[in-house]
Amino acid sequence: MAQIAFDQPEAKGLTAKLANHAADLSFDELPDDIVSIAKCCFLDWLAVTLAAQDDPITKMLISEAKEQGGNRQATIIGDGLKTSVAQAALINGTVSHALDYDDVNLLMIGHPSVITFAAMLGPAERDGTSGRDFITAFVTGTEIGCRIGKQLMGESHYQKGWHMTGTAGTFAAAAAAGKILGLDPDTMTVAFGIAASQAAGLKANFGTMCKPLHAGKACQNGLFAASMAKRGWTSNREILECVQGFGDTQTNAFTPDLATDGLGERFLTRGMLFKYHAACYGTHAAIEAARVVRSTHGVTPDEIENVELHVPSGYFKMCNIREPRTGLEGKFSLRFTTAMGLLGEDTSSMDSYSVEKCTHPAVIAMRDRIKVVANDDLENDHAVADIILTKKNGSVVRQSGAVYEPETNQSRQWSRLTEKFNSLATPVIGADKAGQIVDNVGALQSLDDLQFISKLAVKEG
Amino acid sequence: MAQIAFDQPEAKGLTAKLANHAADLSFDELPDDIVSIAKCCFLDWLAVTLAAQDDPITKMLISEAKEQGGNRQATIIGDGLKTSVAQAALINGTVSHALDYDDVNLLMIGHPSVITFAAMLGPAERDGTSGRDFITAFVTGTEIGCRIGKQLMGESHYQKGWHMTGTAGTFAAAAAAGKILGLDPDTMTVAFGIAASQAAGLKANFGTMCKPLHAGKACQNGLFAASMAKRGWTSNREILECVQGFGDTQTNAFTPDLATDGLGERFLTRGMLFKYHAACYGTHAAIEAARVVRSTHGVTPDEIENVELHVPSGYFKMCNIREPRTGLEGKFSLRFTTAMGLLGEDTSSMDSYSVEKCTHPAVIAMRDRIKVVANDDLENDHAVADIILTKKNGSVVRQSGAVYEPETNQSRQWSRLTEKFNSLATPVIGADKAGQIVDNVGALQSLDDLQFISKLAVKEG
Repeated sequence: MAQIAFDQPEAKGLTAKLANHAADLSFDELPDDIVSIAKCCFLDWLAVTLAAQDDPITKMLISEAKEQGGNRQATIIGDGLKTSVAQAALINGTVSHALDYDDVNLLMIGHPSVITFAAMLGPAERDGTSGRDFITAFVTGTEIGCRIGKQLMGESHYQKGWHMTGTAGTFAAAAAAGKILGLDPDTMTVAFGIAASQAAGLKANFGTMCKPLHAGKACQNGLFAASMAKRGWTSNREILECVQGFGDTQTNAFTPDLATDGLGERFLTRGMLFKYHAACYGTHAAIEAARVVRSTHGVTPDEIENVELHVPSGYFKMCNIREPRTGLEGKFSLRFTTAMGLLGEDTSSMDSYSVEKCTHPAVIAMRDRIKVVANDDLENDHAVADIILTKKNGSVVRQSGAVYEPETNQSRQWSRLTEKFNSLATPVIGADKAGQIVDNVGALQSLDDLQFISKLAVKEG
Repeated sequence: MAQIAFDQPEAKGLTAKLANHAADLSFDELPDDIVSIAKCCFLDWLAVTLAAQDDPITKMLISEAKEQGGNRQATIIGDGLKTSVAQAALINGTVSHALDYDDVNLLMIGHPSVITFAAMLGPAERDGTSGRDFITAFVTGTEIGCRIGKQLMGESHYQKGWHMTGTAGTFAAAAAAGKILGLDPDTMTVAFGIAASQAAGLKANFGTMCKPLHAGKACQNGLFAASMAKRGWTSNREILECVQGFGDTQTNAFTPDLATDGLGERFLTRGMLFKYHAACYGTHAAIEAARVVRSTHGVTPDEIENVELHVPSGYFKMCNIREPRTGLEGKFSLRFTTAMGLLGEDTSSMDSYSVEKCTHPAVIAMRDRIKVVANDDLENDHAVADIILTKKNGSVVRQSGAVYEPETNQSRQWSRLTEKFNSLATPVIGADKAGQIVDNVGALQSLDDLQFISKLAVKEG
């Protein structure tokens, strides 16, 4: 219960090293593909945030924000409410993760876009941040999220029960927001210390509204850390590495060397993976394999006798609801989603995950031909699946699916994400605004500010 | 990365049991001494919050709140700013812990008042809560803080590096705020689940402004948990006891039996201890012993040859700065504070912890006659100290001090705390308002609302 505010000597440890990197990274140091990926992430983040406009999560958070009130500094995506940057960070961050349709980075074991953009967007709107600085801030946040996430804390942190998106996410948000606020290296180090005292999020709350809340809280708390550091708040500048610090309390596999390996040279942002199916990521490899069975092998539904679907054993706990009754359960059903893929249904649309689809006789008939097999040859941390399909004529078709390799062709990735964006955004804001957003995000590095967001990424206005 | 919102059966585990107790506790069940203690806590909380008005912490938080804006729902103690209940919870909670002069409960290993009152006061002002309900909410929060703190999580949680005031404090704040919001048992259970996803605070940030921030964040996040639960948010209703839940991730000594032992019969609020010296709690037993040496044994400074001060060995790390140079360092110096006690200086006044006092020749001369000895016969978790004083005439005076036993005479406690309140509050709000506050808090259980706070506990108005 002691509070001793001794002056600390200039910090030179791991926390300071990562914070220095964060504060110093400039747009000119970013490789072209990293800039492209950042724009993909922003477009996709806007898509999944707009798509969640009617979610109860969104309505509850907006009601709460209206009750609290706040200066009109920042835009709530979709709704268009103007509120304080702190509340906008919480709402936009949480809503963007509500559908679990946002991007993933396995080098973090987490969701970089939902813990960065909402922390940055409010201050960027308020302060007139340029597109270049916005991109740089996102990459900074993502690098810090990955480096403090999987790299520093290891799988141990996640396996113990911590939700990396909430915990490491708070540092990522502090770094991203800190860039927008222009923190110098020492102030960024202090911001990381403040972030550590707020970092939280338990996987035991998966399956509840607290899961997306972890993202929103990371944004709000990370922004708070950056803002208060700028005001002169104090913290332990060695919070990651010190005795009883973030590492000491929350992992058995603290690896500082990995956290700084290739700092400034190797960009972990390159590990971004996007979701093209509106279901649990664990079902995506199977859906991809099913689509190839249909498109490349030309197998039609009436030819199929039965299907063995081999997946890593960990997927049995993650997404193997055998007979889903609701749309949400359908998202966590390997049999349902694979059946949808074999039937040629649109697995990217939110509407495909409905009671109607789950209980449709043709879908159930196909679903019941599928047997899910745990295959220990398949690694749990890889998003993979093997289909072994036996036709009624006795012939066998084998097809693997894998979705853990990032796309390297950036123009193909942009085009596929544009399609996803249009499909999700158009019903909410109309085709005209959707098209203009695609144009603006596509030219993000040449924009003077982010004002297009408040005009276009909202239902009215 | 899965989110599965299955309906949960009615929760019957530990989380639900504690939440049911919290939701059901009524004023009529509170023993008289518990009501008296609650009023002591509130008066003392107002005292230490007012006393921190000029702290940089206070100014920074108020500047941040003004930048964010918010509806005029709740009063910032001292300053008088009206802002949103969320921001008031953060500011009042943090500021009240800024001086580390607030109460302690060793049954929690934490500071119950700073994690409850700020979470309750805003909604109580807004909703017109009665004095009875306010007292009941405080006791509820304190019971939950103690039961989820030391009782459930054990010393292990604290020893690992967690700051109980921040972690268990978030549940305490949720319980206290939840009472003001009138949550039913099931909604309170959900609020605890939301609290768990925000519970944070590392002891490695002691000695920085993040230590008091843990209290403010607990208040803000606990209030948020209660508010969102009321709006229909969802969480895991077994978050304390489930696999990878709060206990599983953060203690090696999970003891559910202790957490529910005597629930509703034995009030842990009875363990409240108050600080009468504006220094680290570890110095208090020594100061008390020194005062008795002076008052009862009649030893004057010029009679003293030397002093051996025996303390538990753990105090060497906590508060044994040998030659303090600043007021803050003085608060963590057993030699300085004991010297002040032997000299008859006012150790309750903030002004006694100054560069001037620390460097005053008479104080230094007395300080240098004191030798601090680690005595393994004295237990670390007890706030005790033994003085063995040798006079210049060769005679020896022995005196023990102990401050770990709560005062049982409530009228003596109230009177001593009134003195402390007047000493701290009068310079900020004047004697007239201070006197009226004492009267109001003294009659708290008969007040219809808390409106006196916004009129009296502020500098202007």
